[in-house]
Amino acid sequence: MPDNIPRFLAEDIGLGDITTEAVIGNEKAMGVIVAKSKCVVSGLVEADHLFEHMKLDAEMLVENGQWVEPGTKVMTVRGPAKAILTSERLALNFLMLMSGIATATRELVDLAKAVNPKVRVAGTRKTTPGFRHYEKRAIMTGGGDPHRFRLDDQILIKDNHLKIVGSITEAVRRAKRYSFSKKIEIEAETPEQAVEAAKAGADVILLDNMSPEMAAEAAKAVKEINTGIIIEVSGGIRPDTIVLYAPYADVISVGYLTHSAPAADFSMDIKKM
Amino acid sequence: MPDNIPRFLAEDIGLGDITTEAVIGNEKAMGVIVAKSKCVVSGLVEADHLFEHMKLDAEMLVENGQWVEPGTKVMTVRGPAKAILTSERLALNFLMLMSGIATATRELVDLAKAVNPKVRVAGTRKTTPGFRHYEKRAIMTGGGDPHRFRLDDQILIKDNHLKIVGSITEAVRRAKRYSFSKKIEIEAETPEQAVEAAKAGADVILLDNMSPEMAAEAAKAVKEINTGIIIEVSGGIRPDTIVLYAPYADVISVGYLTHSAPAADFSMDIKKM
Amino acid sequence: MPDNIPRFLAEDIGLGDITTEAVIGNEKAMGVIVAKSKCVVSGLVEADHLFEHMKLDAEMLVENGQWVEPGTKVMTVRGPAKAILTSERLALNFLMLMSGIATATRELVDLAKAVNPKVRVAGTRKTTPGFRHYEKRAIMTGGGDPHRFRLDDQILIKDNHLKIVGSITEAVRRAKRYSFSKKIEIEAETPEQAVEAAKAGADVILLDNMSPEMAAEAAKAVKEINTGIIIEVSGGIRPDTIVLYAPYADVISVGYLTHSAPAADFSMDIKKM
Amino acid sequence: MPDNIPRFLAEDIGLGDITTEAVIGNEKAMGVIVAKSKCVVSGLVEADHLFEHMKLDAEMLVENGQWVEPGTKVMTVRGPAKAILTSERLALNFLMLMSGIATATRELVDLAKAVNPKVRVAGTRKTTPGFRHYEKRAIMTGGGDPHRFRLDDQILIKDNHLKIVGSITEAVRRAKRYSFSKKIEIEAETPEQAVEAAKAGADVILLDNMSPEMAAEAAKAVKEINTGIIIEVSGGIRPDTIVLYAPYADVISVGYLTHSAPAADFSMDIKKM
Amino acid sequence: MPDNIPRFLAEDIGLGDITTEAVIGNEKAMGVIVAKSKCVVSGLVEADHLFEHMKLDAEMLVENGQWVEPGTKVMTVRGPAKAILTSERLALNFLMLMSGIATATRELVDLAKAVNPKVRVAGTRKTTPGFRHYEKRAIMTGGGDPHRFRLDDQILIKDNHLKIVGSITEAVRRAKRYSFSKKIEIEAETPEQAVEAAKAGADVILLDNMSPEMAAEAAKAVKEINTGIIIEVSGGIRPDTIVLYAPYADVISVGYLTHSAPAADFSMDIKKM
Amino acid sequence: MPDNIPRFLAEDIGLGDITTEAVIGNEKAMGVIVAKSKCVVSGLVEADHLFEHMKLDAEMLVENGQWVEPGTKVMTVRGPAKAILTSERLALNFLMLMSGIATATRELVDLAKAVNPKVRVAGTRKTTPGFRHYEKRAIMTGGGDPHRFRLDDQILIKDNHLKIVGSITEAVRRAKRYSFSKKIEIEAETPEQAVEAAKAGADVILLDNMSPEMAAEAAKAVKEINTGIIIEVSGGIRPDTIVLYAPYADVISVGYLTHSAPAADFSMDIKKM
Repeated sequence: MPDNIPRFLAEDIGLGDITTEAVIGNEKAMGVIVAKSKCVVSGLVEADHLFEHMKLDAEMLVENGQWVEPGTKVMTVRGPAKAILTSERLALNFLMLMSGIATATRELVDLAKAVNPKVRVAGTRKTTPGFRHYEKRAIMTGGGDPHRFRLDDQILIKDNHLKIVGSITEAVRRAKRYSFSKKIEIEAETPEQAVEAAKAGADVILLDNMSPEMAAEAAKAVKEINTGIIIEVSGGIRPDTIVLYAPYADVISVGYLTHSAPAADFSMDIKKM
Repeated sequence: MPDNIPRFLAEDIGLGDITTEAVIGNEKAMGVIVAKSKCVVSGLVEADHLFEHMKLDAEMLVENGQWVEPGTKVMTVRGPAKAILTSERLALNFLMLMSGIATATRELVDLAKAVNPKVRVAGTRKTTPGFRHYEKRAIMTGGGDPHRFRLDDQILIKDNHLKIVGSITEAVRRAKRYSFSKKIEIEAETPEQAVEAAKAGADVILLDNMSPEMAAEAAKAVKEINTGIIIEVSGGIRPDTIVLYAPYADVISVGYLTHSAPAADFSMDIKKM
Repeated sequence: MPDNIPRFLAEDIGLGDITTEAVIGNEKAMGVIVAKSKCVVSGLVEADHLFEHMKLDAEMLVENGQWVEPGTKVMTVRGPAKAILTSERLALNFLMLMSGIATATRELVDLAKAVNPKVRVAGTRKTTPGFRHYEKRAIMTGGGDPHRFRLDDQILIKDNHLKIVGSITEAVRRAKRYSFSKKIEIEAETPEQAVEAAKAGADVILLDNMSPEMAAEAAKAVKEINTGIIIEVSGGIRPDTIVLYAPYADVISVGYLTHSAPAADFSMDIKKM
Repeated sequence: MPDNIPRFLAEDIGLGDITTEAVIGNEKAMGVIVAKSKCVVSGLVEADHLFEHMKLDAEMLVENGQWVEPGTKVMTVRGPAKAILTSERLALNFLMLMSGIATATRELVDLAKAVNPKVRVAGTRKTTPGFRHYEKRAIMTGGGDPHRFRLDDQILIKDNHLKIVGSITEAVRRAKRYSFSKKIEIEAETPEQAVEAAKAGADVILLDNMSPEMAAEAAKAVKEINTGIIIEVSGGIRPDTIVLYAPYADVISVGYLTHSAPAADFSMDIKKM
Repeated sequence: MPDNIPRFLAEDIGLGDITTEAVIGNEKAMGVIVAKSKCVVSGLVEADHLFEHMKLDAEMLVENGQWVEPGTKVMTVRGPAKAILTSERLALNFLMLMSGIATATRELVDLAKAVNPKVRVAGTRKTTPGFRHYEKRAIMTGGGDPHRFRLDDQILIKDNHLKIVGSITEAVRRAKRYSFSKKIEIEAETPEQAVEAAKAGADVILLDNMSPEMAAEAAKAVKEINTGIIIEVSGGIRPDTIVLYAPYADVISVGYLTHSAPAADFSMDIKKM
Repeated sequence: MPDNIPRFLAEDIGLGDITTEAVIGNEKAMGVIVAKSKCVVSGLVEADHLFEHMKLDAEMLVENGQWVEPGTKVMTVRGPAKAILTSERLALNFLMLMSGIATATRELVDLAKAVNPKVRVAGTRKTTPGFRHYEKRAIMTGGGDPHRFRLDDQILIKDNHLKIVGSITEAVRRAKRYSFSKKIEIEAETPEQAVEAAKAGADVILLDNMSPEMAAEAAKAVKEINTGIIIEVSGGIRPDTIVLYAPYADVISVGYLTHSAPAADFSMDIKKM
């Protein structure tokens, strides 16, 4: 992957951090990044990479994926005060957004796995343009499955494709002509569609926006045809409903993780050295 | 600004939309984008620009900044089914994220202006790396003030700068050496600091994390020194507290708008033409 | 995918096509691209895209994937002589290289399918840096399977991975922790390894550098464990040996297609209009 | 020249080497690159540069341009197993393609120089889009002359230019108006054209697709006009015909070197350290 | 800011410094950069950054902003002769152009400050496309104010805007709707316009192309309305006229600094080490 | 060549032309670009290309390379007022800088050709980083020869190379090993060096910083050896000295053209349509 740090810095700095240029000299400083809300930490690697790019000495005090309480020091950074001040906001933005996602993921994973230890909680492509890689990483830090990073990862035939093709069986037939190296997934809105997809040879079947009962029925019917087929459930999943789908789903995908999880809170305290 | 559409598409598509390539032919189609939650719409221009990039014919059915009810059709797009399917997710991601921000902004603006019609609600730099431009646009669509897009927009001396410089007066003195074309803002954590900043010649004073009462006292003291100085209030502002700061603030800046506002919900329905 | 045409043109042109600038005026011209060797044509779309970029009017006279005899006119292009002359070489380079690959692919596909109509001939990652997309497209034009475009397409555990991990079973166990959306393939050098991979739950098994007899034995053993597992054969496959592997292979992958297939021959004849 | 390594890696890796991520830990390893076919080695500098980019310790065991027998170890690389595995294929692709070209070049150079020690064997612009620089380097490693890297290197008026301009004399007259710093070369298809070009003041004359006898006659006629004019011969040159042109040519340019030379064979053996 | 050094080097080098490649070996050398005209030195940081990029050891012998006499050694650089020779021209181009601007700026600053120690001499946007950052830096080295780096730095309503809007008062009213974080400046061509702008609430008023007397009158009228308004003067300012505007201007902006200041003269002497 | 317009616009605009956004609506306008100083116009093509990029309708009223008097309208542009205002400065910057160079070039060309109609006036590599292409174009518009655009255009062995190599004869011998497609030029500081270069086989000899008399002697000696060798003269050439070198020089190269020629003056008048 290309290094996005220079571009992200450029977005925040523009032509120059004029405040720091105007008021700060050659002082050395130390910054301490502190969690201000309880969260699963994610983004430490990105912050560390940023500080390395700025030629600062950073040290992680906790590990990505760890729960921390408010007040926990998660990272220190030492070097020229100018460089610390100029990169502070980007470091905090990585941490607050990625930890927010990791925390929401971990909460759903824990809820779902309490019901079915084999179930996976996955993300979706409902991500922020340009920031998907980091959002998927945060899901993985939280214990989730990234699902497709891009449209070229896997064949996933959704309702809008089916409206054009007309038939699940025909859609799967066409998909099979494509490379053997990719899995084929079909979105089904009814148990009948799920069964048709299973018979056509889908590797994964996505039960979309079904009630927990209907989804259970569809999953059962599919597994009777081929136990190797993976059942994915999606559609407005929230903490209170995930436990209803977890018993029979292999994968539960949740758009909320990346489009609506609130950020965790972090701040940096700087002092002269 | 460089055109980010190709890069955002590349992030979502990778080497190719293999599903669409595998199962869709030369069919023409129409897609209708429908709001599924009540929201202030933002992102129409970006979706339109994307569709234009894909050589599709798009039509906006509502205006950016308008409140819409669930079920409202906001946009149609016509052309090759392949191109519509390949760009669907990016278009929806613009709409859902930007409308989420615009909606949260509008709600705070309405609350604050009911108390003080002259107050501005502003964003912060707590944005998603690489997506700030769109987040700031969404704030503007919601009726907010974008505040600094970048560090080069304005001089804003924060607590961490002051810990290095040591004195507000000295920091302002240094800042004044920089170009006459930029405003100088100082973050104050106490009314005494606010007064010192005012006397030193700051154009804007940011009252950070003060209680409503303390902020009121600081604002009063500053205006007594120079009525032209702009008072900005910030720090964990939420709907229930914004009305307490609104009476005397010129600007209230809110990180929540860009780091934690939940997405609005949109979907696209496609049919063959 | 980003548009490579500007970069490819820049590589060929540098600062300017000084010959054309120096000796050609505003004349209009027509160029005819003619095949000079028998081949399966590939690269027409790329040449067409290039001419469109140059604002020239191009017309394809044959279809990608079609066998043509020497002397066949495959494309015409009309417009300013300068633009035709400046883009001539890049258009021909696309055609000659991609048609060379498509032709070699078609020859192997025909040989293999005569023995086993269900077998697929696939490419490898032994491609020219920066030109893989086009080489994979040419394989597809020739009737082959592109196989992995990139390392992120599929999990493929090769001998060098196994030397680090130590055990096929352990390697598959680790791979299964990764996303459900990806297939898992294992390279096996003996029938015993193939059996171990099959038992561990691999989706695809690559029989590498085995003799036709040994590969046949391995394939049989694997299918006895799970008929759904895909058998891929690789390792120095040439026209005379492909028929020996074809009877029992699902996929035969051939590095030769992209690293050593000779180019087809094309030229352009230009005349003033 | 911009560093292409990050782009080439991105092409091969995409978002991530998911196999290595999934199955390899923090092990250290050593990789040994071994030639598996007899060849003139080229691409060592590029492989070394790649390994340096990956922060690996590489050591070249032979020199670029050296003949090696099958089984010769040409390079070792030490460091984290992950980084070695992720960069293995790109390193091998550089070596196999560039050594293939260097080997073909050396063979022609040796044949031609046995007849005329002063003759140069040169490449053409019939190269792979995006990879020309490396192909030209490989020709130089093989003892050849790169010829034009780009259209801005030299003025070379070809048959298609002449069809527009109408006259060699007029074409040269126009070319002379361009900068004094560039050589002017004309393609001639008959001895008469060669003579016209010589009289018009060309610095180099390209005898294209002439029989050896006709080319000899043209060369003689040109040298009688001005011994300083360089004679280049081109058009379907192969090992068996190069010796027929070598006696009187100053330069023999061969498209085969870059569009059809078969790759040399290399592999990497990795072991844990 | 992105690092422009690689792009600037690429512009000068193209595919390779063929002279140095052809004639220089592995010799080590030292280069000494010498001023050949009296000037205020600027560009040392850029030259140093370039040499660092080339992995050369550079040492600055004077400071940016210092007056030097012809013959003064300003910098030394040590390392491989090839790298020094390849980067020589770009280093000198930075120095000669930036020192030319710094020198012209210092001369005007000294003239203007002799009359009014508080006045600032500023640049304009009349800069070389792609090189503005360096030209603004040179102005700052010379003691000037950079003024707007870009159109997003500040709102500056010029005559052409007013011809569309129709009224200064209306233009300011519209500008005030934009972010509080930006200053608003109005161009006035008469004292009456200046007064209207002052009353409308402009932060800065640009008196454009007025005679010294008219500008004095306008400045006086503005300051009577609000002493905090900044008065900028512009329009064909040269050394002989700057002293006439300096007494009452806060800022004098001069396009000449960046579009017509003659370069300073520098050369490099290299010797083998 | 890559299209620099987007980058140049980005440099000037940054995130947005906030003045125009804030005060201008959907008005249509016409802008007229007027020369305000006597000059040879250059930059019209670039301004036109910029306006096309902005989707404006532009019309050139004069031709590149034409002398114009102050007050001459050179171009009109029609379309949305916003787009005209946002691109105004960049269009004028192209025109003022390129016309300044073209004017200075034409003046020297006229002086030199009055003495020797065959002499060429050429530029150097003393150009603005990132803007060389345009500066070279302006020289060509003014009737000059661009000389080397980049280090890869031609082999030019300068004094600093000779200090490393030690001998002109040896330097030329090494240069001849490089591609036959490039000319070889040597810088000589004495007639003896010029003679040595001529005997060694240089294509061009650069007489650097010689007095007119010494240069005349060197030129004569060189031509006696080989009349085909091109004589270039350089070193502090100005209008009053060019006529002294013109009688015997083939090329006179002048750094002044690109590093110190004053800009021509242009402005744009806009009115609502």
